[in-house]
Amino acid sequence: MRAIRYQPDRLELLDQTRLPHETVWVTCRTAEDVYQAIRSMQVRGAPAIGAAAAFGLALEARRLGPANVRSRLPEVAAWMKTARPTAVNLMQAIDEVMAALEEAPPGSEADALYQRAVAIAERDIETNRRIGEMGAKWVAKHGGRVLTHCNTGSLATVEYGTALGILRAMHEVGTLEHVYVDETRPYLQGARLTAYELQEEGIPFDIITDSTAGFAMKLGWIDAVIVGADRIARNGDTANKIGTYSLAVLASFHGIPFYVAAPTTTLDLSTPSGDDIPIEERSAAEVTHWMGRPIAPEGASARHLAFDVTPGHLITGIITERGVAQPPYMESLARLCENR
Amino acid sequence: MRAIRYQPDRLELLDQTRLPHETVWVTCRTAEDVYQAIRSMQVRGAPAIGAAAAFGLALEARRLGPANVRSRLPEVAAWMKTARPTAVNLMQAIDEVMAALEEAPPGSEADALYQRAVAIAERDIETNRRIGEMGAKWVAKHGGRVLTHCNTGSLATVEYGTALGILRAMHEVGTLEHVYVDETRPYLQGARLTAYELQEEGIPFDIITDSTAGFAMKLGWIDAVIVGADRIARNGDTANKIGTYSLAVLASFHGIPFYVAAPTTTLDLSTPSGDDIPIEERSAAEVTHWMGRPIAPEGASARHLAFDVTPGHLITGIITERGVAQPPYMESLARLCENR
Repeated sequence: MRAIRYQPDRLELLDQTRLPHETVWVTCRTAEDVYQAIRSMQVRGAPAIGAAAAFGLALEARRLGPANVRSRLPEVAAWMKTARPTAVNLMQAIDEVMAALEEAPPGSEADALYQRAVAIAERDIETNRRIGEMGAKWVAKHGGRVLTHCNTGSLATVEYGTALGILRAMHEVGTLEHVYVDETRPYLQGARLTAYELQEEGIPFDIITDSTAGFAMKLGWIDAVIVGADRIARNGDTANKIGTYSLAVLASFHGIPFYVAAPTTTLDLSTPSGDDIPIEERSAAEVTHWMGRPIAPEGASARHLAFDVTPGHLITGIITERGVAQPPYMESLARLCENR
Repeated sequence: MRAIRYQPDRLELLDQTRLPHETVWVTCRTAEDVYQAIRSMQVRGAPAIGAAAAFGLALEARRLGPANVRSRLPEVAAWMKTARPTAVNLMQAIDEVMAALEEAPPGSEADALYQRAVAIAERDIETNRRIGEMGAKWVAKHGGRVLTHCNTGSLATVEYGTALGILRAMHEVGTLEHVYVDETRPYLQGARLTAYELQEEGIPFDIITDSTAGFAMKLGWIDAVIVGADRIARNGDTANKIGTYSLAVLASFHGIPFYVAAPTTTLDLSTPSGDDIPIEERSAAEVTHWMGRPIAPEGASARHLAFDVTPGHLITGIITERGVAQPPYMESLARLCENR
């Protein structure tokens, strides 16, 4: 399954706000189109928005033309980074295509950016397969019943997925028994997107409401928890979809291993700790309304933190394409990033 | 605010599945009507369904008439107890009106049951006011920012409320600063009903998704947590709306006091521990659909535990109309129930 299709003159994104009931492709031809698709959650998931932003800048380079691209693209790149402040893959992918601009022979800037964006996308798929393989071996030793949160699959990456990639890999080798999927309010990425991907793979699963996870652990339903990440600080503190922190505390209380799965591009060694990760607060209307219909009294106030930060000491292991880091993360993550 | 209106020939219930957007009263004239209103969640909250069931049996006594009431009402009463197996107030209210049947002079059974149901309803209001007064003093010493879950207000009781009654009482004396309301999936009793009651009272609040509660505690937003109860076992283990257990674990992890507010009719000394409380599992469609519309892929499987059990050792205090019990609950709860 692919949610991103690219060509030199356009980027097509499977609109994730409308899945699983409607299959609508959004066509982006400018950086502005891609920025809006990220803001509106039509494309989401740290690796997917990194790739989408890279293609967005390549499209913009084509639109600006050789005469203007070098003078005007840097400003567009800086603005594109503000589309999702928490996810670091966005910043890294943008820096990477902008480096390609520096190196491009005059006149072929747009082609150079597009080729770099394609490389980012292809590398993501390869990376996810390695995370899957590595993680499957690691997680299966705890058992086959895994809880996951949000969506970290083909819809959150270019293809295959991070945490969900591990579930796919476990399913391929027969060690996956059952998946419990947090519905993941307010966007219901678990109920809508993860359930959709698991169903397509024929993986047995149950959706549960987010607040059921703790009691499911107490009842002995869960052998391990695996989640994705939007940014991992140098000390292992991990920003991810709101609710991840609660799961980590609950898993720790119940003695259940709690894993984060992410490519090393999600590691941000320049961020010392979780306190330095900006947390995006989104519109309250996304909590008080569903599909345009109110679910709370008119005028009711709400807070909508889109992400939270889980301290490294609550994380059993961070599974990357270069290996599994374990505490203390200050050393183990730095080691993983050597010669990256 | 009242969600229950009674007369000898009918019980009117404010339909809680349609609040806050529609104000629809359901009229019950038989025990069957009341049973269905409980099953379908039109009336909910342990004290409210206790009172509703008492009126349901009084209506049935009237319908059966003096010739049949003594022979046929016991079977109806036994069936009525199955409407919500977790909530013990239901069992207690039913036993209480059935005791009135025993004592009634021949020919006036229906009147006797109705009078007893009215007494149960009026006692509930008085009880809630006492819980509110007592709890307000107790909770305010921790601070004025309180997190609550589900709905425990006028809509869950006959009037005023248990945990929400404490918030009302704190607001009356000026010690309540801010309320954080878990939306409480899947029925959204927090977002729909608690927000509605708080708005009517002019109490400042924010709705948060259930999975935000843990991070809100970490961020220092919360001074205390107060929830209601559907059944409290002899050792303090408390059944309440799904998600309560997670909150208790999270509060304990963050050193935040966690209170249960309930009338002593919710104490069930005949249930030794939480392991003996039956947990109602409801239809998966209530998780996978919202207002009749699917929010997950067609055919997706879900688990819908409607309640969970919080072990007594995670509960800072149980606030009743007779006083605040503290651990060890085996002794403190028994003391509260003396001469009940």
